[in-house]
Formats: sequence, C-alpha cells, structure tokens
Amino acid sequence: MIDLLIEKLRSVLPDDRSFLALHEPNFQGNEWQYVKECLDTGWVSSVGKYVDLFEQKLVEYTGVSHAVAVVNGTAALHISLLLSGVEAGDEVLMPTLTFIATANAVSYCGAIPHFVDCEFRTLGLDPRKLATYLAEIAEVRQDECYNRQTGRRIKAIVPMHTFGHPVDLDPLLDLCARYQIELVEDAAESLGSFYKGQHTGGFGHIAALSFNGNKVITTGGGGAILTNDAELAKRAKHLTTTAKVPHKWEYNHDAIGYNYRLPNLNAALGCAQLEQLPGFLAQKRTLAKRYQEALQDVPGLTFVTEPDFAKSNYWLNAILLDETEAHRRDELLRATNEQGIMTRPFWTGMHKLPMFADCPRMDLTVAESLEWRTINIPSSPFLGGRHDEA
Amino acid sequence: MIDLLIEKLRSVLPDDRSFLALHEPNFQGNEWQYVKECLDTGWVSSVGKYVDLFEQKLVEYTGVSHAVAVVNGTAALHISLLLSGVEAGDEVLMPTLTFIATANAVSYCGAIPHFVDCEFRTLGLDPRKLATYLAEIAEVRQDECYNRQTGRRIKAIVPMHTFGHPVDLDPLLDLCARYQIELVEDAAESLGSFYKGQHTGGFGHIAALSFNGNKVITTGGGGAILTNDAELAKRAKHLTTTAKVPHKWEYNHDAIGYNYRLPNLNAALGCAQLEQLPGFLAQKRTLAKRYQEALQDVPGLTFVTEPDFAKSNYWLNAILLDETEAHRRDELLRATNEQGIMTRPFWTGMHKLPMFADCPRMDLTVAESLEWRTINIPSSPFLGGRHDEA
Repeated sequence: MIDLLIEKLRSVLPDDRSFLALHEPNFQGNEWQYVKECLDTGWVSSVGKYVDLFEQKLVEYTGVSHAVAVVNGTAALHISLLLSGVEAGDEVLMPTLTFIATANAVSYCGAIPHFVDCEFRTLGLDPRKLATYLAEIAEVRQDECYNRQTGRRIKAIVPMHTFGHPVDLDPLLDLCARYQIELVEDAAESLGSFYKGQHTGGFGHIAALSFNGNKVITTGGGGAILTNDAELAKRAKHLTTTAKVPHKWEYNHDAIGYNYRLPNLNAALGCAQLEQLPGFLAQKRTLAKRYQEALQDVPGLTFVTEPDFAKSNYWLNAILLDETEAHRRDELLRATNEQGIMTRPFWTGMHKLPMFADCPRMDLTVAESLEWRTINIPSSPFLGGRHDEA
Repeated sequence: MIDLLIEKLRSVLPDDRSFLALHEPNFQGNEWQYVKECLDTGWVSSVGKYVDLFEQKLVEYTGVSHAVAVVNGTAALHISLLLSGVEAGDEVLMPTLTFIATANAVSYCGAIPHFVDCEFRTLGLDPRKLATYLAEIAEVRQDECYNRQTGRRIKAIVPMHTFGHPVDLDPLLDLCARYQIELVEDAAESLGSFYKGQHTGGFGHIAALSFNGNKVITTGGGGAILTNDAELAKRAKHLTTTAKVPHKWEYNHDAIGYNYRLPNLNAALGCAQLEQLPGFLAQKRTLAKRYQEALQDVPGLTFVTEPDFAKSNYWLNAILLDETEAHRRDELLRATNEQGIMTRPFWTGMHKLPMFADCPRMDLTVAESLEWRTINIPSSPFLGGRHDEA
C-alpha cells in the first residue's frame, strides 16, 4: 500500500524536484515592489500605510466588518480570548486536535483548556457530541455557564477549522446561545474557506487568522483579529498597541496592553499576497482534485475532502488511513519523507502534552483515532499548476 | 528661552526639511539585497539563515555569549523575566520612568511591578537610594528576598538604560548579590552603549534588546534576549519557539511556550542594519556633541550627557529644564512640534498609570522631577552628518 501511495503521489507531483515541502510560499506578485517601498520610505515598523491597507483588504475579502493586523496567530487568539471576557480560572472549550497556539493562548489568560472530541467529517470539533456532553456537565446560572464537575465558569469555545475545513458552525452557534458561551473562531488555517457561502471568521464573537510562512498567504510572521463588532475592533487595536491613549506627545496607557502590532514591512508582504489569494486557492483546489482522483484506488486510505456544507481552502491536504492500517503510520511517514515527499502526522492531542494533561476533557475517542490515522501531504499552490490551467 | 532654544536647535539641524522626526531609520546598506534574497528563496518566516546570522552578529558585537532573536523588546523582557524565575505574586523592582513594556512584561508573568526612583546622572534607577530603601523594607530568608511590608518575594530587578545612558551597574550588582535578586537588564534602548568598557546587556542574569522602528537599528519590529549562560539561552530559544521538542515529524511540546521567534525577513533587515551600526553611532556622537555645544548658552536648561563611567549610544538626545523652567514644558513641546522639530516629554511615571497605581513604590521625588523637566529632541543618525565627516 505504501509503494502504491508513493507512486500515486508522484503521479500528481512534479518530477523535477528532489524535495517537496508541505507548504511553500510563493512571491511572484507585487511583494518586491511593496517591500522595497517600505525600505525606500523608511516606513518599516509600527507606522505606515500597509498595515491599514492590509486590514482593509482583509475586510473586503472576508466580508467580516473589521480586521486588526497583529504579529501572529497566537497573538490574535490571545487578544480574542481576552476580549471575549476570558479570565483567570475560567475554562475554554477547544478541540484536542489543534496546533499548540490554541491551548497556549488560553493559558496566557490564566484560563484552563477543556478538551472536546472531533468528528471524521471535518476533523474539527464535533458539535453533536459536545451537545450531549454539555447536557451532562454544564449548567447556566445568571447568564453564565458553569462546569458542574469543576465549579469553574466555561466562558468561551474555540473551534478550529482544521487544515482549512470548516467545522459545522450552525449547531455550534445554537449550543453557544443555549449555554451562554462566547464563540471565538480559530480561523488560523482557513483564510479562503467558506461555511454555507460565508467566509469563516465572521460567525462568532471574534476570530483569529494566521499568516505564518506555511499558510495560504504569508507575511513572514503575522496574524489578524476579525470581528463584526466595531467596539471590539477598537479595543483590539488598543490592546495590541500597548493600550496607549492617543495624544500628540504624552505617553499614557490605560490598561495592561500588548506589543502585538504587525510591522508595516510584513503588512506590505501581506498586501501583495492577498492580491494573489484567489489564484492560490484555484491552484489548491486543482491539486486537491488531482489527489482525490489519483488516490481513490489506493486501498487502506481515504483522501480528506471538504464537508458538504463548506468550501474549503484545502490549506493542507490530508489522507486518512483505515483503522486497520493505522499501525503503519510511522512507516508511511518515514518512507515518504525519505523519498523527498514531505508528510507529517496530525498534531499530538493537547490532552497528552504534560502541561495540559490534567485539564478537563470529554471522551476523545474520535480524536485519538484521527491522531493515528491522519497524514498531511504536500500542498503548495504551485503543485496545482498555473491558475489559467486550473 | 524657548525662542533661543529653537534658534540653537536650528543651528544644529538641517534647514532643508519641514519636519524632523525624533528618530528615523536609515536603509542605505545591504537591506534591499538581503530582504530580496528572502523573497527570492521563499525563506521569509520562522526558518532561514538570517535569524541565525543576526543572532551571531549580535553576539560578536555585544560580546555577550548568546543571543536569541524575538519579535520585539516586550517579548524579550517577558521571556527574560520567566527565565529569571519570576512567578505570579512576586514583586519585580524597576524604575518608574520607563517605557510601558517593562511594567507590562512583569504583569504577563502575574507579578507586580515595584517602582524605584531615578537619579539625575543617568536618568535611570538610583542604586544608592535603592540600597537605603531595601535596607528598610527587604529581608533575605533562605536565599530569597522578601518585602517585609507586603510579604511578597522580590525576585528580580529590571534597570533600564534610559535613552541609551547606562545606569550605574556596579553598585546595583552588589545589591543584587546581597539581596539575592536577579538582574534583568532592559537594554532595549542601549545597543551600542557601554558601561566601563563592556557592552550593556551582559551584566546580569539575562537582558532584552529592542529593534523597533525608532531604535538605533531596526528590524521593523524585533528584539533579542542576551545572556552569558548557555543553558538559559537554550531555554530562551525553546520557550520562544512554542517549546516544541525537536522531531522529524511529531508535534510535541513540553511547556507552555510562546510564538516569539523573529521572522527571517525581519532578521535580514537586522543583519544589514548591524553592519551600519558603528557608522550610526559615530554620527549620533557627533550630533550629541553639536547639541551640547549649541545649547550650552541657553539659560534654563542642560543638555543631557553620558555619565562619566559610560559610553552612551545617545539613542535619544535629551534636555533637562531647570526646576524653575519646568512649568514651561508643554509650551516648549508645543512650540517645537509646531515648527516641525519633533520633541516629546519623558514617559509618564508608571506609578501614575491606573493599572499600576496600587503597586508598591519607594519615594519617587527625583523621577517626578525628571518627568516634568526632560524633553527629547531629534536624534536620527543622519543629523550627525556623514560618518567620514564625523
């Protein structure tokens, strides 16, 4: 099966490269021009036109009313949680299968991650299983949700759109309304992904994007906070810029703030990248389609496709091994990586990491199965061919 | 006096500009070449040669054994405090006259700033006055220092080298040894400043640098942690890169970590800037000398010069109004800014900000006097003329 998989992967991938990364950035647009302008004018840091322009372009593309650019997705999550009222001692629900940033950001607030199971359909949080679980452990008192088992408040939930595949948001929104829990969308991987026709990141209270080097578009390091609430956006900008009170020369600050503003140099890169996003997405859909076709006859695995309610950006393509083949995961990872086809497994479930081992969690059977069966395969846009071929 | 000051400032400053900023960056070296290489190779993010190179060049220049590049000076301070063992509920001594980042970083650790007075000679923390104060309020029990008044542990002290002028470190190091307090140098403003012949940032346990857009050199946004302790440096790198345990494909993390790594794109800028640092410093010394000469006959103020034990980078030039003239500060700020000569006052004392108003503090008479009498004046390297003229 492994040999056949490699043969089929090779049939999709170009044969002129000795190494294919999981996700390479592409800078063939206006990157040089915009970055050089920053250097020529001296505006590389916290002031400059590209930060505003990048935020404006994110608003236009996502349809979410406000965007605040920040240094990375972790910073975006941290501020999003603070602005959702998460306080020390609160619990925050999240899938156990997520990048470490989701759980770390909760810790920065002094809050406690509470791990939720995933579903096969989206690889993300399972709202139906969560509904059953909350019915058992949660209760609403004076418009706030409490965990009956720990006595702690459950303040927010952070669904993460895994590899760009949107989770099923409608039943989750119902749950949030019923239990008075704030929805913070971790859209770090889902720029260009839509749930029932609407861009991810606009469904909850507030959301986080990431533009790390391996994302659909990159700013070197970078992220953004999205929200439809003008007041929240204003507070996000304030908190991410050291909470300085505007004044011609006085240095007054009215809260404990953060130095999370995206430098203008990085925002310039982001503006050029956003211009190319539709092309990247078209290439990535073509690549996913080719993988799907090539891999359909490989026994023992399934190529992961977008759920029927969503249009995914296919940020990272993934295959799901059959349960009977799960024991061959590491063999498969070794064989592909040795042959220059970069692959990697799912993240380790957060509940298995030492610093989160004692955090509350529900039954995680599906997540634990997914963790051993899911493998990412090369997903760079250029692998889908040129846009006009797509 | 204000008219004469402006006349004298104009005699130093170029007359072909309608606006002179406090500190402008200069990108006339290899910036474009290095940044373009990042774009051409695709290495803009968390992996790439410039991060390592930048760290290596910082080590060579400062003489401190290890450097870890991070997203900004605030992040460098945060990690430096964590690695000095600062925990929730501890107190951390710092000058009340500092940029907000120093106090915020302490808050991120759940610790409490404890504000210390400054001295006229350095504008920074006064080690002699602190010695008297600690004799009153501190005691050492089982190798740890406690505040007798609050019962809390005093874990660290963060002297900040204001505007690049080094504080008097020797008596401070004596105090730290006597009271078992960790010295964390806030060298955010003092790249290129030396105390008794040795570069700042290498005297304590660990130190923080900043490369914000207004600093002596800039990476857009950026900072670095400096330490002579190899083990600390290793932990700093680990904590700033999400505490990921190295593995070919597994995603394991062994601590609550941070996404604080400097992107390669920004490090590339830093490499080019560091090459020009000696030239910038020479220009800045020339400018300071010209200011000193031009302002010596202006009544009611003194131009701030480096303390006799130090060689300062003169990051921001400053004038100190006589006490009798302090009431004219805002008038002076207004007049200069209206004429396109950017000036600004000292930061507001941290103890006056609402979120730190209840923090412990010693008598702050000198800091309160300095706050109303100190004004920064334009300090960009190019104002000192070309290096070969210097």
